[in-house]
Amino acid sequence: MTNMGMYVAEFLGTLILILFGSGVVANVSLAKSKAKDGGWIVVTAAWGFGVAVAAYTTGWVSGAHLNPALTIGFAAIGKIPWSLVPGYIVAQILGAMGGATLVFLAFKDHFAETDNADAKLGIFCTSPAIRNYKWNIVTEIIGTAILVLGILGINHENNAVGALGALLAGILVWAIGLSLGGPTGYAINPARDLGPRIAHALLPIPGKRDSDWEYAFVPIIGPIVGGLLGAFIYQFFLNLWI
Amino acid sequence: MTNMGMYVAEFLGTLILILFGSGVVANVSLAKSKAKDGGWIVVTAAWGFGVAVAAYTTGWVSGAHLNPALTIGFAAIGKIPWSLVPGYIVAQILGAMGGATLVFLAFKDHFAETDNADAKLGIFCTSPAIRNYKWNIVTEIIGTAILVLGILGINHENNAVGALGALLAGILVWAIGLSLGGPTGYAINPARDLGPRIAHALLPIPGKRDSDWEYAFVPIIGPIVGGLLGAFIYQFFLNLWI
Amino acid sequence: MTNMGMYVAEFLGTLILILFGSGVVANVSLAKSKAKDGGWIVVTAAWGFGVAVAAYTTGWVSGAHLNPALTIGFAAIGKIPWSLVPGYIVAQILGAMGGATLVFLAFKDHFAETDNADAKLGIFCTSPAIRNYKWNIVTEIIGTAILVLGILGINHENNAVGALGALLAGILVWAIGLSLGGPTGYAINPARDLGPRIAHALLPIPGKRDSDWEYAFVPIIGPIVGGLLGAFIYQFFLNLWI
Amino acid sequence: MTNMGMYVAEFLGTLILILFGSGVVANVSLAKSKAKDGGWIVVTAAWGFGVAVAAYTTGWVSGAHLNPALTIGFAAIGKIPWSLVPGYIVAQILGAMGGATLVFLAFKDHFAETDNADAKLGIFCTSPAIRNYKWNIVTEIIGTAILVLGILGINHENNAVGALGALLAGILVWAIGLSLGGPTGYAINPARDLGPRIAHALLPIPGKRDSDWEYAFVPIIGPIVGGLLGAFIYQFFLNLWI
Repeated sequence: MTNMGMYVAEFLGTLILILFGSGVVANVSLAKSKAKDGGWIVVTAAWGFGVAVAAYTTGWVSGAHLNPALTIGFAAIGKIPWSLVPGYIVAQILGAMGGATLVFLAFKDHFAETDNADAKLGIFCTSPAIRNYKWNIVTEIIGTAILVLGILGINHENNAVGALGALLAGILVWAIGLSLGGPTGYAINPARDLGPRIAHALLPIPGKRDSDWEYAFVPIIGPIVGGLLGAFIYQFFLNLWI
Repeated sequence: MTNMGMYVAEFLGTLILILFGSGVVANVSLAKSKAKDGGWIVVTAAWGFGVAVAAYTTGWVSGAHLNPALTIGFAAIGKIPWSLVPGYIVAQILGAMGGATLVFLAFKDHFAETDNADAKLGIFCTSPAIRNYKWNIVTEIIGTAILVLGILGINHENNAVGALGALLAGILVWAIGLSLGGPTGYAINPARDLGPRIAHALLPIPGKRDSDWEYAFVPIIGPIVGGLLGAFIYQFFLNLWI
Repeated sequence: MTNMGMYVAEFLGTLILILFGSGVVANVSLAKSKAKDGGWIVVTAAWGFGVAVAAYTTGWVSGAHLNPALTIGFAAIGKIPWSLVPGYIVAQILGAMGGATLVFLAFKDHFAETDNADAKLGIFCTSPAIRNYKWNIVTEIIGTAILVLGILGINHENNAVGALGALLAGILVWAIGLSLGGPTGYAINPARDLGPRIAHALLPIPGKRDSDWEYAFVPIIGPIVGGLLGAFIYQFFLNLWI
Repeated sequence: MTNMGMYVAEFLGTLILILFGSGVVANVSLAKSKAKDGGWIVVTAAWGFGVAVAAYTTGWVSGAHLNPALTIGFAAIGKIPWSLVPGYIVAQILGAMGGATLVFLAFKDHFAETDNADAKLGIFCTSPAIRNYKWNIVTEIIGTAILVLGILGINHENNAVGALGALLAGILVWAIGLSLGGPTGYAINPARDLGPRIAHALLPIPGKRDSDWEYAFVPIIGPIVGGLLGAFIYQFFLNLWI
């Protein structure tokens, strides 16, 4: 398998993730959608299932990181070579832009029928419930640390999860949303936030607001720090020391 | 196994799918049902589980396509012979009619107690939240493309999903509903829409409206195009090129 | 393994099923419960999980029928000897009485705080949304037929579901509740209804109403007919003829 | 593997459990959280998934009891040596304190924005819906007995659940919450209640109330008695006698 093949798979996998993830937010928040106000269980289940579907569809090619925080965390503990990291991250961001664009097309008329510009932005990228960059970063660090620690723990060879692994990764993301998603909308993934934010800026969305660029660094910095933290906790407390 | 055996299995499998799928819409929308207003999570979970149950019950006979878009997409990339396609599609449409008829019987008195003729039609077939055939077709194309791409990806031999495969197909359909179901009610399957629409026209449903035949081509064309698209994306971007 | 061992397992398994099943109805309907008005997704998930937990806990001893309709359907197509049927059914009814009694104890003070006598009865046994014995029986027949057909299909040797089987049985019951539970409260199991109904009559429940014995034959007759129907559909359309 | 390694794993596993468990209560109850009022399905799913994630992450090291009631029950029937019990319990309580502290950090500003001191306490420890120590203990006994009986039954060698085991344990806990959680908030685990209660007393939570120490013995005594009961029922009715 070529590196380019793996990059294509990461692109496609992240596109699928955001198709489901941005899709569900559009589905529950845009005017006249049959799923309007579907609730937190709907939003979080769809993000989790999006991870699982993307991972089954593309994981056998590239491992389906779908997330620069995971890619960097894996590289930091030697699970993948650093040489793959830049290509993976570019593919993930482009894939996230692609997924967000498909959501725009799938809900085209609903964007036009919706007045709330904040809700339209919320389909693409995260925003904090209480804006406080320091504590928003802390929340993202904690969420991403348990994401990366959990992925590594689930896939430890002693568990022998086999084909169940991608479903469990999806359930992990579902659980993070259920339990820790309220303060920041749980980016826990720089590509998930940055790619769609760029798409929001570029797409001809009727009645859109600015893309809130001043918050954009939070869901980049927080998840990368958290991902490294989760990887190191796994490596030193579970994998090596025991 | 004879072809006729596979057609019977497709008939029975699609009947089961629609028994659960039309059933849940009846359950949450008809007057006096104990599940009235159960919400989007109820509707989408039941459609997903309906796929899984139907696939476990009949998949070991016929593969449980349950969906002409899947059957045509599979034939287009050589997964099944074209000679099976007409029989599969006829069986799927007849099975969908059978499932819808059982739902009518299971909820017999509730149809009589319900005034809303649109709600009664909605149990049988899909309708758009915002009627615009072009964009309704786009939504159906996107939904069905990810359905067929996902089914093919999940079942790639490298995943070795084994007995988990039918459950994952169900989760995929659950996710499509959660994320992309709001604009058109996610037919993503020509038989799922056409069969029950015919049943609606034929059955002695008290206080029924017309069967909205002018929309009927959308959930036929959209899913077929989407299914072909999903199959080709799988074939050229994942399966062959990598 | 002795027959008595299998009867004990059926007793214990049905007790567990009803502990979860009657428990969730108590949880969402009794005054001051933290789960009050949890919704249809809560009720149906708990019944499904109750099946799964009971089946994993006792299925390796007795097969975990937990349901006379399943026991009779299995005997009718030769899956178990008729000689086991009476003992299984007695054990299932006694187990259901035991589970309902535990629910009474777990929610003791909440029964005293609740005024609604119909709600208290509804924790123990089913009642129709629209009382019409003929159509109530039809609904129960359809629900139980798909239950028994589904159980047999899932466990067909070609599926090789292994340890996944009990979870899939739970998902099947979850789905039946989601899609077909609204008209009659989906007994689909004579022991599930009769055992707790007897418990309701015997237990010192404060402010209870009569136990609605005139409806009691519906969730006995309907499920037995439906179970036989499901078993025969499986046997003649899937297992033998193909 | 050293004992210390297992204690670290129990610490980390219980920390993960409480991060998800206390997290979801914060998520649905604190002011301005995006998941506010997410409902009982959200709360119970997150507790269940928290068990599963913790068990996959640390179970291959220590068995992931995460719960003194399970540890004591296992020791009572000879599944683990009594010599491990004190270390396990200390690690579980410390881990629960750690998880609760992370929840406090992840929701820092939301604690400040919330007026309801009872809601803030409810994030950390359980409280009864109707305060009656005798019956509250009965409810906890029943819930924990089915927890321990279910864990032992699921993992019986005849089930051969393999990698599915930790997910099934999570579903079991999800089900207990759905069905039996309303009267006491289902501690079913002394460490889950005591550790976060201590954290509540120690942490500088703005506007907090007292930590309700007079109730603290209920979720210690009830689960320990229930755990022993569940273990003995398994041992004498399922494992030995049959």
